[in-house]
Amino acid sequence: MSIIEVHRRIERMKLNPAQIMVLGFASVILIGSILLNLPIASRNGESVGFINALFTATSAVCVTGLVVVDTGTYWTVFGQTVILLLIQIGGLGFMTLATLIFFIFGKKITLRERLVMQEALNQFKISGIVRLTQYILIATFLIEGIGAILLSIRFIPIFGVSRGIAYSIFHAISAFCNAGFDLMGDYTSLTAFANDPLVNVVVWILIVVGGLGFTVLVDCIQTRKFSRFSLHSKMVLSISAVLIGIGFIMILLLEYNNPATMGTLPFRGKLLSGMFHSITPRTAGFNTLPTDQLTTASIFLTIVLMFIGGSSGSTAGGVKTTTAGVVIWTIVSVIKGNDDTEIFQKRIPRDIINRSLAVIGISMLLVVLMTMVLSITERTFSFIEIFFEATSAFGTVGLSLGITPMLSMPGRILVSITMFAGRVGPLTLALALARQQRKKKGLIKYPEEKVIVG
Amino acid sequence: MSIIEVHRRIERMKLNPAQIMVLGFASVILIGSILLNLPIASRNGESVGFINALFTATSAVCVTGLVVVDTGTYWTVFGQTVILLLIQIGGLGFMTLATLIFFIFGKKITLRERLVMQEALNQFKISGIVRLTQYILIATFLIEGIGAILLSIRFIPIFGVSRGIAYSIFHAISAFCNAGFDLMGDYTSLTAFANDPLVNVVVWILIVVGGLGFTVLVDCIQTRKFSRFSLHSKMVLSISAVLIGIGFIMILLLEYNNPATMGTLPFRGKLLSGMFHSITPRTAGFNTLPTDQLTTASIFLTIVLMFIGGSSGSTAGGVKTTTAGVVIWTIVSVIKGNDDTEIFQKRIPRDIINRSLAVIGISMLLVVLMTMVLSITERTFSFIEIFFEATSAFGTVGLSLGITPMLSMPGRILVSITMFAGRVGPLTLALALARQQRKKKGLIKYPEEKVIVG
Ligand SMILES: [K+]
Ligand SMILES: [K+]
Repeated sequence: MSIIEVHRRIERMKLNPAQIMVLGFASVILIGSILLNLPIASRNGESVGFINALFTATSAVCVTGLVVVDTGTYWTVFGQTVILLLIQIGGLGFMTLATLIFFIFGKKITLRERLVMQEALNQFKISGIVRLTQYILIATFLIEGIGAILLSIRFIPIFGVSRGIAYSIFHAISAFCNAGFDLMGDYTSLTAFANDPLVNVVVWILIVVGGLGFTVLVDCIQTRKFSRFSLHSKMVLSISAVLIGIGFIMILLLEYNNPATMGTLPFRGKLLSGMFHSITPRTAGFNTLPTDQLTTASIFLTIVLMFIGGSSGSTAGGVKTTTAGVVIWTIVSVIKGNDDTEIFQKRIPRDIINRSLAVIGISMLLVVLMTMVLSITERTFSFIEIFFEATSAFGTVGLSLGITPMLSMPGRILVSITMFAGRVGPLTLALALARQQRKKKGLIKYPEEKVIVG
Repeated sequence: MSIIEVHRRIERMKLNPAQIMVLGFASVILIGSILLNLPIASRNGESVGFINALFTATSAVCVTGLVVVDTGTYWTVFGQTVILLLIQIGGLGFMTLATLIFFIFGKKITLRERLVMQEALNQFKISGIVRLTQYILIATFLIEGIGAILLSIRFIPIFGVSRGIAYSIFHAISAFCNAGFDLMGDYTSLTAFANDPLVNVVVWILIVVGGLGFTVLVDCIQTRKFSRFSLHSKMVLSISAVLIGIGFIMILLLEYNNPATMGTLPFRGKLLSGMFHSITPRTAGFNTLPTDQLTTASIFLTIVLMFIGGSSGSTAGGVKTTTAGVVIWTIVSVIKGNDDTEIFQKRIPRDIINRSLAVIGISMLLVVLMTMVLSITERTFSFIEIFFEATSAFGTVGLSLGITPMLSMPGRILVSITMFAGRVGPLTLALALARQQRKKKGLIKYPEEKVIVG
């Protein structure tokens, strides 16, 4: 069945792209649940139960990483392979869709931009879409491959050749897709590697690159000079750098003497784990320090970072860096008495500001409501544990203060719904809103340029 | 010294109105602290200590109601009188200033509005300001007087004539000013009256009327027909009604069977206390149920309501109903695909939307930062206790999960700063922003009309 045929069939079904996306992800989750529900997926030879299979499949497809059973010890190689495939499909699928939407609906204005775009992507006909998808696939496998090779330097000596290679591939994919699933056992994630520079740096880079988004990577590779980047790339890179920097300094200050986290690590380990825990909330989900032992201030900081998340058109979740950036820049311009939101000598169009506001407002409402409902179903846990879990699920982060395996059945269903809503929600919204977008006249001071938000 | 002379002196000092307001409130707090620090203010004949005196004076002037010592049992009649005066000065002063700023800077556009305004306030020359202040004083004392008379029906039989009258006056002023201070002893607030319809209804009305703001009262009394109200009044009344309604239903659902709160009350008591705990977070600060015994979901709902608070130009705190309303309506219009925020067939000007965004964004930042800092200084309390305390201080609410008297000295100073910032901050910001406001051209669909935010 050719692409054009699929396209025609879809047209006959009268589904809009948002509905197609939701149905597509839901189908993959359903297939994954059925596979993970099989007794051969579990080491103990018994089915994990459908709700748990559904939870795990949702977590994998939505590249979240919250788990009700330990990935490394509970599942068989078959189960782990299913999870890895779901992660790769989810991560790639989401990134590709988001990038396509950006290129199809986020039409840029300047001639220069049009040329850059044309060059890179051959202007979004069916052939363009196929080519773009090819580019994304190649880039993804290339980056994951290099990551896996580098990780194998450490993992083969520890786990032996076959397990070492398998672990390297699994964790490279999980890191690049911002999935946060690990095979280390007993929910320990990467805590054994807190002081390991190789694992740290490779995982950092995989997470950050996966979380920047394909369009930013294209700019970095093709355009090279920061001053000639698209506004979107400039915003993504500068906001990501600032967030990582602030997070690093704050985590370091707050945890430096905490004996339960980095207090006992050598200076190098403190720096490495400080950087790791600045990067991981946006929205990788691995941890090298025991998350539940962080100070309350660090946990709250982590909640804020998880809510912001990564960048649009990437494997990361959250409300996205540009969305938060547009709102923050608008606030700054209000304080300066400026009517327009100007970033890097460009003016942000009014509808983008409104859309950012909508994405953040609706996301907050979702997190608040889920926290409230979970606090009713999960009475044994403290507020911060529930608030953290809800934000982590919404942002598809996968960090937890340890309550996921102890959630009640209604709680598991609610967290699954939150992961799914957090993954497809902002994008669906962005898509639905982009389609309605109207042209507007206005006084132009700087040339306009769009950024993707949500 | 005449008003004009004061005006000239101020002009010579080159202070802007925001600075004058901050200095004015700070001076009253300082005088209050000195008085409360005197041994004659404390029943045990020893000074309460300057930090505690400062905390109490700040809480009273900022009409917050958080207390480190119990108001009813710790202070002498002298101390309680000082607190009552500080509440009245703080509540009146803030309401008057905010109303003046609205009338001076929030210039309306339509001729009808101008006529209504002219009639009511003689157009804001010095004489207009004096007259406006007179109106506000008369209205305040009238409402408080009626409230006190009604409360005395219940309080005289319980506490005897002299104490009954004193208690009636104290609680009527404290309720209208949204101050939340009470004399009932042992931090019990109004829990003894959870099932008392008279006290409930009188206190509800005092709180709500105090929290609507003077301009809305003028509209209600002079204009009478809702359809002819200013957009500001329409928004304030409708948002307040919706918030009270939603809060009532949710509190009732969440607490109905909670044996520690309303579970043991008769049906009437459930309804009364449900309504009370829907009204009090915005931002009265009394309680008829033990706040720390509420379910986690109710506590989180209370945090959200405390953050929103009352209406601009009133005695209440928080980011204000109109501010939240503008943002929510903007989100709804984005979802509808509408570029403009239209409320009651009026279009909200762009700069008001930006300003709302700024007030909410900066307020959230303040609450998050204060929660983080307090979680460092107050390690013995849980996250929700600290988050609740910070939001309560910022919104000048005065509700607490019981940790205020146990705060460390740095914690007391931080909460004092938060109360002060929460009280003068949004208004200062609104003032500073109103002064910078620029005229802008645009496509007009509906006639424009301003609302006050922050
Ligand atoms: K994740
Ligand atoms: K209060």
